[in-house]
Amino acid sequence: MENDPDPMVNGSAEAYEAGAVLYVPGASAVVYRLLSGLVRLHAVDGEGEGVTLRYVKPGDWFGEEVLAGLPRSVFADAVTDVRVERFEVDELTAEQRDAIVVRMAVALDGLYRGMHRRATRRLTARVAAELLELRDSALASDEGGVRTVLMTHDALATSVGSVRETVTKVVGELVRLGAIDAGYGRIRLRDEAMLRRAADG
Amino acid sequence: MENDPDPMVNGSAEAYEAGAVLYVPGASAVVYRLLSGLVRLHAVDGEGEGVTLRYVKPGDWFGEEVLAGLPRSVFADAVTDVRVERFEVDELTAEQRDAIVVRMAVALDGLYRGMHRRATRRLTARVAAELLELRDSALASDEGGVRTVLMTHDALATSVGSVRETVTKVVGELVRLGAIDAGYGRIRLRDEAMLRRAADG
Repeated sequence: MENDPDPMVNGSAEAYEAGAVLYVPGASAVVYRLLSGLVRLHAVDGEGEGVTLRYVKPGDWFGEEVLAGLPRSVFADAVTDVRVERFEVDELTAEQRDAIVVRMAVALDGLYRGMHRRATRRLTARVAAELLELRDSALASDEGGVRTVLMTHDALATSVGSVRETVTKVVGELVRLGAIDAGYGRIRLRDEAMLRRAADG
Repeated sequence: MENDPDPMVNGSAEAYEAGAVLYVPGASAVVYRLLSGLVRLHAVDGEGEGVTLRYVKPGDWFGEEVLAGLPRSVFADAVTDVRVERFEVDELTAEQRDAIVVRMAVALDGLYRGMHRRATRRLTARVAAELLELRDSALASDEGGVRTVLMTHDALATSVGSVRETVTKVVGELVRLGAIDAGYGRIRLRDEAMLRRAADG
């Protein structure tokens, strides 16, 4: 499922373990490209409340605010073990800037869709859409022939902009529909066509 | 307040009146730069429920999903009278692509901040932040020495992801605080320092 892009010239490759913080809000001159694994961009307010803003998949660039000379306003965490390339923003080639344009256009489109989903769809549809979004990420694998997403209800709640208690009820609803099976920290996508219908509301 | 960028080579300039639709979801090969006025990107679901995803200000590029070969998933409307430049995506110069990288990085950062605000801040803080965001846009002007945003409660509700009835209550709260005065379709920013404190929660 996952494409593993070739490292580029003038990028230095680095590896981080699951849970590691790649960067925090503040000034920087480094932009990243993800080689493998899954990275989560999120923000945290004064009371420690957080929200997942974007998942970064292999081949995507992130930390792109430095291209505009802006300080970062978000955190980047490794969700799984990851490998990334770091580029000094002043050393990017024309080809790399072109690649960034394309990937940023994809990221913007994804944010538009996610914001729209959050604003207008019922929570069940948002949870179903989130699981389908993650089915091709490094959080998912085949277990006994069934695509399985490794994620707690807590993490799922942060991703869809809700709280654990409510998400647990929604997960129960999707289990009753026969779309998924849920175990501790893992969700098996039993019937993806059914899950797609739930996502479409 | 508003900078009015110079037209670029190989872009064709066009004017639209307030309320005009610049594009709808679907395939396209055109990317836009805003010269003057204010453009709103928004999405609409099957039931006609909409949400404002991003305001585009002079100098910003929009319709950038075509750079990634993606169909548009959003609508673009002229909020005020606007002038735009249209560029065929295949005819962009290297300088223009570089300019797009920078503006898209700004747009992504703005979306991150907006999503975070929607997810974690009280509605009063979101309305206050939205008014401050629009104070330097083509929707605002100086009236009798007071910065005034021309906007109905309905439009404000769509921007902050709420409904008119609730936003009307919040506007009343900000009026009582002395931060703003509200009239039909216009909001006068009476005390911007107070409004800033409300925005910071």
